[in-house]
Amino acid sequence: MISDNLLKQIAFIKEIDKVKYIQRKTKLFNSDRNENDAEHSWHLAIMAVVLAEHSNENIDVLKVVKMLLIHDIVEIDAGDTFIYDTQKNHTNTDEERLAANRIFGLLPKAQAEELIEIWEEFEAGETKEAKFAKSMDRLEPLLQNTSNNGGTWAEFGVDYDKVYNKKKVIKDGSEVIWDYAENLINESVEKGILKKI
Amino acid sequence: MISDNLLKQIAFIKEIDKVKYIQRKTKLFNSDRNENDAEHSWHLAIMAVVLAEHSNENIDVLKVVKMLLIHDIVEIDAGDTFIYDTQKNHTNTDEERLAANRIFGLLPKAQAEELIEIWEEFEAGETKEAKFAKSMDRLEPLLQNTSNNGGTWAEFGVDYDKVYNKKKVIKDGSEVIWDYAENLINESVEKGILKKI
Ligand SMILES: [Ca+2]
Repeated sequence: MISDNLLKQIAFIKEIDKVKYIQRKTKLFNSDRNENDAEHSWHLAIMAVVLAEHSNENIDVLKVVKMLLIHDIVEIDAGDTFIYDTQKNHTNTDEERLAANRIFGLLPKAQAEELIEIWEEFEAGETKEAKFAKSMDRLEPLLQNTSNNGGTWAEFGVDYDKVYNKKKVIKDGSEVIWDYAENLINESVEKGILKKI
Repeated sequence: MISDNLLKQIAFIKEIDKVKYIQRKTKLFNSDRNENDAEHSWHLAIMAVVLAEHSNENIDVLKVVKMLLIHDIVEIDAGDTFIYDTQKNHTNTDEERLAANRIFGLLPKAQAEELIEIWEEFEAGETKEAKFAKSMDRLEPLLQNTSNNGGTWAEFGVDYDKVYNKKKVIKDGSEVIWDYAENLINESVEKGILKKI
């Protein structure tokens, strides 16, 4: 007799393979190849492990890593929302909630509930773990864009104010990382790869 | 003053982007697109989170997840070794050790030592966390190959005995998952997608 929980978990594991096909707008480092959501999530999870010491508050690293590993799974149904898209709402939408219920719902009930709760906690961005996870999610594309002559900022005409406003939440997760990030944003203006208007 | 630790960590974070370019032999589920090491590591880390309840022993899930997130980073220098390649040694080679020292060595000293130790623990496969992590690493390509009409088994003429011998270590991590996996291997023979000679 194969465990019923295991069969549900295997169905979930197969379903989330689709995350590997979801293309982000940002490109890999020093590259013109788009990053996909699985690669992005892997990178953020390692960043959290490596940078945890800089969190403003003492955090449960496993919880942060879980958040980052699963944060984009809803995009299987809902698609990637570009952070500088002004037409679309960036708090979790009805479409994303439906996606979370469908995809995490493949898992055994208690586990589905746990992961939906973690995903909602990340989206709300209010707990110390969610704040640190969000700061990872904002830092990676900043590093990528500065390695790519402005990357999506240049490609989509995003200016300093918009970038600064999106990135400043890094400070809620880590003052130390924000010092570095703010510096990088200002340097990007000096280098002419980010426009201040 | 930007934290010296942070600058070292950022250098590491940029370096490991290269993991996204390392192609594995196995293909994505129901697909002919090769998986890369970043996608693979992301998938294994989530599998560990979701399947942890089936571990034979009580495990430190964060440690398992760290192992899986970093286990293929050495391939940046050493390249991917196909598990059914009989020419090449599969225990960690001098080349892999050098790679670990160089790449993790970008990090602050104590952190580099911690991650090299975790990587070595995974490679040795002796602790309960390493055993469970290894069982994830063996399970994913089994799921992929069965979804791809035999996948790398068919492509490289790998037979039942070889597959069974490589996969049976799953049992050391989880008897429950091994029951499922053994069943899947036998079914594959019945379906004609794995040759028993
Ligand atoms: Ca996203």
